[in-house]
Amino acid sequence: MIEFYDNDMSVCAQKVRLVLAEKNLEYERHHLNLRAGDQFKPDYLKLNPKAVVPTLVHDSHPVIESTVIIAYLEDVFPEPSLTPDTPLQRARVLQWMILPDSGLHDACGVTSFALAFRKQLARLEPATLEAHYAKMPDEKRRAHIRALVERGLEAPGVGPALRTYRKALASMAESLAKSDWLAGDCYSLADITMLPYVLRLEHLGLDGFWSDLPRIRDWLEAARARPTFEAIQNHLDPQYLAIMKGSSEEYRERIETLTGTRQ
Amino acid sequence: MIEFYDNDMSVCAQKVRLVLAEKNLEYERHHLNLRAGDQFKPDYLKLNPKAVVPTLVHDSHPVIESTVIIAYLEDVFPEPSLTPDTPLQRARVLQWMILPDSGLHDACGVTSFALAFRKQLARLEPATLEAHYAKMPDEKRRAHIRALVERGLEAPGVGPALRTYRKALASMAESLAKSDWLAGDCYSLADITMLPYVLRLEHLGLDGFWSDLPRIRDWLEAARARPTFEAIQNHLDPQYLAIMKGSSEEYRERIETLTGTRQ
Repeated sequence: MIEFYDNDMSVCAQKVRLVLAEKNLEYERHHLNLRAGDQFKPDYLKLNPKAVVPTLVHDSHPVIESTVIIAYLEDVFPEPSLTPDTPLQRARVLQWMILPDSGLHDACGVTSFALAFRKQLARLEPATLEAHYAKMPDEKRRAHIRALVERGLEAPGVGPALRTYRKALASMAESLAKSDWLAGDCYSLADITMLPYVLRLEHLGLDGFWSDLPRIRDWLEAARARPTFEAIQNHLDPQYLAIMKGSSEEYRERIETLTGTRQ
Repeated sequence: MIEFYDNDMSVCAQKVRLVLAEKNLEYERHHLNLRAGDQFKPDYLKLNPKAVVPTLVHDSHPVIESTVIIAYLEDVFPEPSLTPDTPLQRARVLQWMILPDSGLHDACGVTSFALAFRKQLARLEPATLEAHYAKMPDEKRRAHIRALVERGLEAPGVGPALRTYRKALASMAESLAKSDWLAGDCYSLADITMLPYVLRLEHLGLDGFWSDLPRIRDWLEAARARPTFEAIQNHLDPQYLAIMKGSSEEYRERIETLTGTRQ
């Protein structure tokens, strides 16, 4: 039996949902309301001491970290395969899989907060906001989010985050010049890893990030055309989409300066 | 044919050397002098655009990122195995493997620089030092290293780095309470991943970090007793060991304050 602790808009949870869908796996879904602090409840912390989504529980065994969860699902449920045939291609898959862990996930969080989510938090009463920060077990993450709420695009790290994102897209375009999918001619865990991060940019109105990279647009359309894309699409929260949509509009010029891209 | 672009003291290169040794693989070794800037030479940048060691070249195909390299070696040369038997244990291995990518490697770099390596760089002529910074392609890394050279233990991020390290050790001790090795009863890529990071603390005189965690000491002794440990030991550079040794002595109190540990 598979239980999945999920959040509609979490990029990491979207990754896992895509794999579950590709493998036709049934699961019991628990949706966590992250603004209400469900991730800090003692029962959830027992499963996931980092207080983040997603968590997979398979036959009572928790598996955490989305990179690990998707590798685990591929290991236990190898068919249909999301792994290419050659060791060099599998190495490429792993290289894409660890990209979020190596900075892209932080870049996504920074970008999302600096442009959109800070507005929600900035509206809270100071004491409520402090209580929200105090619950975050990772102190670096806490300091980061505080700076983003207070300073938006001018917080330290926003420029590098936007450039990290842009670099990842350029690297994707380079791979996609050689093959239809990121790690060869088959859709794999590499594509599944990157898809939610590219979609997030689109939701933030930052599709200008790949206006000069047509291979990304083609890849995105092909990924979106798969029936399993529903696993993301059907859970998008209109309220969050509204917060994200157009948030880049007012910052267009500043983003162009920070990244050197044309938005 | 395997070629390996190596550096004596690089924790990431040490990881790969251990795997090569465990699998009895012969290879042609190229040692890069990182202070002389060998990693920025155009021919090396073609193999490794990030300008870091290590790089593995197997039958003319470059593989980069130590996490990916050790997974690749395990994939291509499965015997003797460094992978446990069950999917849950393999998930644990991957969890340890990505820990450096998720912050531990940065914590190691920050700790090493703040305590020891900054002294070497701080001695350089300002223009030479600026030229050294200018060659670093990753701007976050560049800003980080500049702050560490200038401010040592008081640079932003040093406290969190020390605590990230300490947390990783506590998590290791928790795993080692359940089994002899990090992901079960066999030495695996998980242990190989963590060994260079624990040794680095020892080299920096920070073995106080696990004075209250006896399972770490036992694990370290068991890992050191393996004949393949030579792959690390035989390449340790006495000059660097001398720079690192005792560097924590003068900062003992500040480190205790920053981490809450007894050094």
